[in-house]
Amino acid sequence: MMEQVAAASRKRGPYAKTKATRAAILDAALDVFARGGYRAGSIRDIATAVGMSEAGLLHHFPTKSALLEAVLEHRDERSREVLGDDAEPLATLAGLVELARYNASVPGVVALYCTLSAEATAPEHPAHEYFVRRYTETVGILERAFDGCREQGRLREGTSAASAARQAVAVMDGLQVQWLLDPEGVDMAAELDRFLREVVEFD
Amino acid sequence: MMEQVAAASRKRGPYAKTKATRAAILDAALDVFARGGYRAGSIRDIATAVGMSEAGLLHHFPTKSALLEAVLEHRDERSREVLGDDAEPLATLAGLVELARYNASVPGVVALYCTLSAEATAPEHPAHEYFVRRYTETVGILERAFDGCREQGRLREGTSAASAARQAVAVMDGLQVQWLLDPEGVDMAAELDRFLREVVEFD
Repeated sequence: MMEQVAAASRKRGPYAKTKATRAAILDAALDVFARGGYRAGSIRDIATAVGMSEAGLLHHFPTKSALLEAVLEHRDERSREVLGDDAEPLATLAGLVELARYNASVPGVVALYCTLSAEATAPEHPAHEYFVRRYTETVGILERAFDGCREQGRLREGTSAASAARQAVAVMDGLQVQWLLDPEGVDMAAELDRFLREVVEFD
Repeated sequence: MMEQVAAASRKRGPYAKTKATRAAILDAALDVFARGGYRAGSIRDIATAVGMSEAGLLHHFPTKSALLEAVLEHRDERSREVLGDDAEPLATLAGLVELARYNASVPGVVALYCTLSAEATAPEHPAHEYFVRRYTETVGILERAFDGCREQGRLREGTSAASAARQAVAVMDGLQVQWLLDPEGVDMAAELDRFLREVVEFD
């Protein structure tokens, strides 16, 4: 990993090096937090995983909670690609199912996310603002998608786009806990797909 | 609280006293865990709250995890009353909405429950077996209720009772996180009710 950082540095100068180092730290932090949880994960373990000193790591992320927030933002880049705001409504909903399918390949990340989102409902938690913002954003994207479905005559009559959006996010979150408790018995993507087909006509 | 314990003891002998003491401990433990989380809550705080020594408390619950499991079982008595297994299908579903309404009056308990259920997806967590069992039981009760709705011609055509059950539990769990993050913006009971009315015809 540090060789990649060095190569990036030679090619593109100090800014690229910083960027590559930050990305390497975030990958390692996600891994450490996903294995043992945020509270138990230490800056030292993360620094060791990327071959840095603790002081070196803290130069990039001054506190553990700053690191946590950056890990979450980093991870969300994938969600944003999938749920791109200007996509066709049906593409956005299909992207949500795709994301559920991807999540089934990273149980540690899903477990971390479930625990953190619950812990972070406490206003004093370092990730509280992040989760408030993220839920507002996600529900908003889905509400626009369901509104788009209504304009296309695809939304079930009497269904509110705002409710469908809240429910879709809730189904996705709630299924994660059920799936973590019973990975063989629950198919998150199939179940979410069935939920969406109850309220939207896909074809 | 200890006066109640003493009164119960005088009236009904040592067995009643033990039962009343256990109930007092469980109420205090729920309160302590709900305020600061399970990890941070200490046996000493709980013992102090009921006017006992730590040793006295440990006589009733030998470990913190045994206490946690008992707290959860204690709390579930209410859910079981509401979701009684032999109720009419519509009464069971209405009971679920009623439970969501009750939950909105105890945010600390809801937050504890969300965090614990997520933490406890790890197989080594002391409450893991409890949550596996509880989800199997709850999904089973709801599946029977939706099956009953189908027999009464109330279930939406093409909807599977098993899926509806998983989705209803997921909606309920997922809405809790959204509500804790935005108590003014989310009405858990109303949203759950809307979800149920999408799949079941109530009248």
